[in-house]
Amino acid sequence: MPSKQHTEEFGWPSVPRNRSNIPSKSDAHTTPVDANFEAIWPKSDVVKRAQDHIKTVLPTETYNHSLRVYYYGHAMVTQHFPSWIASVGDRFFETWALTCLYHDIGTTEANRADTHMSFEFQGGFLALQQLQGFGAPKPQAESVCEAIIRHQDPGETGTISRMGQLVQIATEFDNMGWQPHLVHEDVIKRVVERHPRLKWSSCFSQTINAEVDAKPWCHTTALEGFAEDVAGNELMRPYE
Amino acid sequence: MPSKQHTEEFGWPSVPRNRSNIPSKSDAHTTPVDANFEAIWPKSDVVKRAQDHIKTVLPTETYNHSLRVYYYGHAMVTQHFPSWIASVGDRFFETWALTCLYHDIGTTEANRADTHMSFEFQGGFLALQQLQGFGAPKPQAESVCEAIIRHQDPGETGTISRMGQLVQIATEFDNMGWQPHLVHEDVIKRVVERHPRLKWSSCFSQTINAEVDAKPWCHTTALEGFAEDVAGNELMRPYE
Repeated sequence: MPSKQHTEEFGWPSVPRNRSNIPSKSDAHTTPVDANFEAIWPKSDVVKRAQDHIKTVLPTETYNHSLRVYYYGHAMVTQHFPSWIASVGDRFFETWALTCLYHDIGTTEANRADTHMSFEFQGGFLALQQLQGFGAPKPQAESVCEAIIRHQDPGETGTISRMGQLVQIATEFDNMGWQPHLVHEDVIKRVVERHPRLKWSSCFSQTINAEVDAKPWCHTTALEGFAEDVAGNELMRPYE
Repeated sequence: MPSKQHTEEFGWPSVPRNRSNIPSKSDAHTTPVDANFEAIWPKSDVVKRAQDHIKTVLPTETYNHSLRVYYYGHAMVTQHFPSWIASVGDRFFETWALTCLYHDIGTTEANRADTHMSFEFQGGFLALQQLQGFGAPKPQAESVCEAIIRHQDPGETGTISRMGQLVQIATEFDNMGWQPHLVHEDVIKRVVERHPRLKWSSCFSQTINAEVDAKPWCHTTALEGFAEDVAGNELMRPYE
């Protein structure tokens, strides 16, 4: 088994699935971040290869969403979960970037038509295989896979990996405007300017419906009212 | 996409995850089954190859559990879900046998040591790859994979495939004695004689603890009190 250092670097340590570790609105100290967005995007070979591939596969709307999720999650970790990066530093964000790039790979028309499986499971499997092909160590590719499989699996019981929790809350932030106290409004403005929403709310709610129509058994059905919540994203309406 | 016939044969059609389709104790007509157990085990090449492989991988306790789950599930479908096999007949049970054989493959010591991923996810992917190698069509291997990934994912919302629901309730029956009205006591007696429990209750509760100890983030943690419920299986205590 890999070292504890590797386990932490790839975002494996457990957190409560019920998010009791996440600061409430009154406890959160959320400020604008001064980060240079270009500088905080990981420059490793694995990320470059993954990004080059994903850019050819995802529609622009979904690609932009994936990058916004990266920057929102980066801000959330820096401000609210500094212990996650205290010993591993920016190396954490390499796995985070890979998770963001791949988390919705299963939602493309081509991938949806190519499987009966729920998109999270198909996407996780694609990530697991392709990332190792791009040179990612197995425990890193597995962390991305596990997070993608569980990225629509919120709940009150048990635990989840840090990477899994982060992709849940960062996608909920971009998709539905949930937990708005975790990211400063100034950050949203900078992020949507860099990676425009292109009417993501209506676009993604249609994608959700397409998934459920094609696969009536799919795991997405576990999220009641999901398509409606995405279409009714009030936080992001000014930026659509 | 495969034909509707194939979709049904492989157990894809959706059912409510909250099990409103499952007869209650008062509604169920549960009788002893007269089945010849040898005759109702599928004889196809894919099942033979899968069984030969699984028999070399699983400890005897887990292998016996997997076969018991098959026979309990076969009885449940025959008696309570006849619509699932009305048009596809026994071909349904080929996919069911593959699901049973593979559903706990991730629980072996070797497989647990070989991954950081939750055992259901690792097991699902092993099944997806190996079954296609044994000649299973992709939609069949995917149905097994999806069912394994969700076999510890009960809940009140949304839907799940028939195969996924069946592996949930049949494993709960063998592991915890839940929904005891679905299978006649005479069937239990015949099944445990054919595939003895070998103290499965204590064996599997230890396996659950080993999974959580090795992977504190794992999906098994979502089932509160799971190890205790397995160890305290009253229905099966006479047969341990």
